[in-house]
Amino acid sequence: MINLGTIGTNWITERMLEAATTIGAYRLQAVYSRHSATAAQFAHDHAGQRSYTNLTDFFNDEQVDTVYIASPNSLHFQQILQALRHHKNVIVEKPAVLSPYQLQMILDEQARQPDLQVLEAARNVHMPAFKAVEQQLATWDHVEGAEFNFSQYSSRYDQVLAGELPNVFNRKFGGGVLTDLGIYPIYDAVALFGVPQQQFYYPTWIKTGVDGKGTARLEYDGFTVILNFSKISFSNQASEIYGGRQLITIDNAGEFTQADYFTGKEQQQLSPAYRDNPMIPEMTDFAALLEQPNTRIAKERGNRERQLMKQVNQVLDRLAASAGISYPQ
Amino acid sequence: MINLGTIGTNWITERMLEAATTIGAYRLQAVYSRHSATAAQFAHDHAGQRSYTNLTDFFNDEQVDTVYIASPNSLHFQQILQALRHHKNVIVEKPAVLSPYQLQMILDEQARQPDLQVLEAARNVHMPAFKAVEQQLATWDHVEGAEFNFSQYSSRYDQVLAGELPNVFNRKFGGGVLTDLGIYPIYDAVALFGVPQQQFYYPTWIKTGVDGKGTARLEYDGFTVILNFSKISFSNQASEIYGGRQLITIDNAGEFTQADYFTGKEQQQLSPAYRDNPMIPEMTDFAALLEQPNTRIAKERGNRERQLMKQVNQVLDRLAASAGISYPQ
Repeated sequence: MINLGTIGTNWITERMLEAATTIGAYRLQAVYSRHSATAAQFAHDHAGQRSYTNLTDFFNDEQVDTVYIASPNSLHFQQILQALRHHKNVIVEKPAVLSPYQLQMILDEQARQPDLQVLEAARNVHMPAFKAVEQQLATWDHVEGAEFNFSQYSSRYDQVLAGELPNVFNRKFGGGVLTDLGIYPIYDAVALFGVPQQQFYYPTWIKTGVDGKGTARLEYDGFTVILNFSKISFSNQASEIYGGRQLITIDNAGEFTQADYFTGKEQQQLSPAYRDNPMIPEMTDFAALLEQPNTRIAKERGNRERQLMKQVNQVLDRLAASAGISYPQ
Repeated sequence: MINLGTIGTNWITERMLEAATTIGAYRLQAVYSRHSATAAQFAHDHAGQRSYTNLTDFFNDEQVDTVYIASPNSLHFQQILQALRHHKNVIVEKPAVLSPYQLQMILDEQARQPDLQVLEAARNVHMPAFKAVEQQLATWDHVEGAEFNFSQYSSRYDQVLAGELPNVFNRKFGGGVLTDLGIYPIYDAVALFGVPQQQFYYPTWIKTGVDGKGTARLEYDGFTVILNFSKISFSNQASEIYGGRQLITIDNAGEFTQADYFTGKEQQQLSPAYRDNPMIPEMTDFAALLEQPNTRIAKERGNRERQLMKQVNQVLDRLAASAGISYPQ
């Protein structure tokens, strides 16, 4: 059993716990929230054993071996470091951190305690459809490009239009679509094709000064990958990977619930539509690492997870820089 | 009746004549081809009255009042000029010419004979779905962007992969996807949104030295339009126009056979799937101009056609220049 402590009490933590319960490999030990009533209620609702309003007390809970972090992005760095220093594994919502320097400090801390895992919860690259696409791509001898799309209109944008300043569109809190939705297609591209040779981000600015919509261009050796994402408009577009007379389509770069393969007029389903809790696949993969951390395969997978996290961090940092965006640290 | 002379005997001229016959406003008078047998056979097949292998004789045919030009792009310029100088209207396949200077010479010649029309056959912007999209957009107070896609795998690319050099991928003949397929989504964007403030083209080069695939980025005041097109891969992507909680989808930026409107979960068909010969709408629009050239409305529409042709020419020229592409003149 993996003994979880959670930071953050919003819907994503609930979905994660729902997935963890379904898998059966996790048990909720401790809940942290700044507010005592919120912490107690959340623990009660999810069969958590204890609740904390003091972060140090929370990290000192000896029953917790793995901390799940879904706090505001700007708090991740200190919380990840503290968790590791209290000898706990970390599962952190994406983006883990935005600064390459912060990420390296985390990786250094993990390297000092190599039996610990630091895992970024990029659920899309753990989906069955993602793995089916990886397998299909492994049979291709050339790629002509790809386009990954993930757009969802945010009801908070109505507030912006009404003159308000919600956090998700506030520069001071690192708001903007690149880190919020863009991180999904970036994960897709980097997991499938690696770090690009060059990367550029073309944002559509909204009046609060953040990027509400954007297109990223990732230049690889011989092909280009285009990423489109938006919180100020929605889209029905699928995502596609081009291979001459071959084509892979994915329903949605953020969800990755279904993948299909086309060649000429023929169609083949690579992975049927996934209809379950979309955090089950990642939490299943993570459980395998966390339950048997000292096997060779767990060590290799842990390395791959950290390498991918670092590559994504680099691409995200460079995309932001290419558009003159700097996030508060 | 509009009395046609045709230059070019390939499938597109056949489709045009099929459309012209369906409309009933056109009659094929004369056919030009370099080869006598080809010219005679083509005239015979399409009820043409006379065939020519000498271009001057063809232009001197007094029964012809309108010349349709579907020759290789590099021949368009001289043929358009000659047609105008023989006091004939021109319908020319897109791109009419690639050089801004050549286009201006054509427009100057037309201005000296203002009863003549010079029409670029951009069939997509004459489709019923295009007009339905224009009407829908006129009710929007803001646009967050658009993406127009048009990709078709070219069987000629198999020849390139086999080491050959077909004309459509030959630099010497101005080959490449930007002028061949890119012209369609460029027409869409410029007809709907005007000339962008900035434009950039990101080609995927193939081994013959031309662009086989590419993405263009058109920057407007407050929004970005992305164009994707390819001859070395295919795509199932629709095209989309973003307006916050509103969305227009178009089946295909090159065909523009169908348009739909979405807001939240509601869907409304803007224009049903067009299943007829796709050159009928443009040839119908052109017939209205050519049959009554001296009405105020025909003069206005003729002006608009030439203005759009000039704007598209400018955007195409600047896109090519942004990627270091220069076409043989």
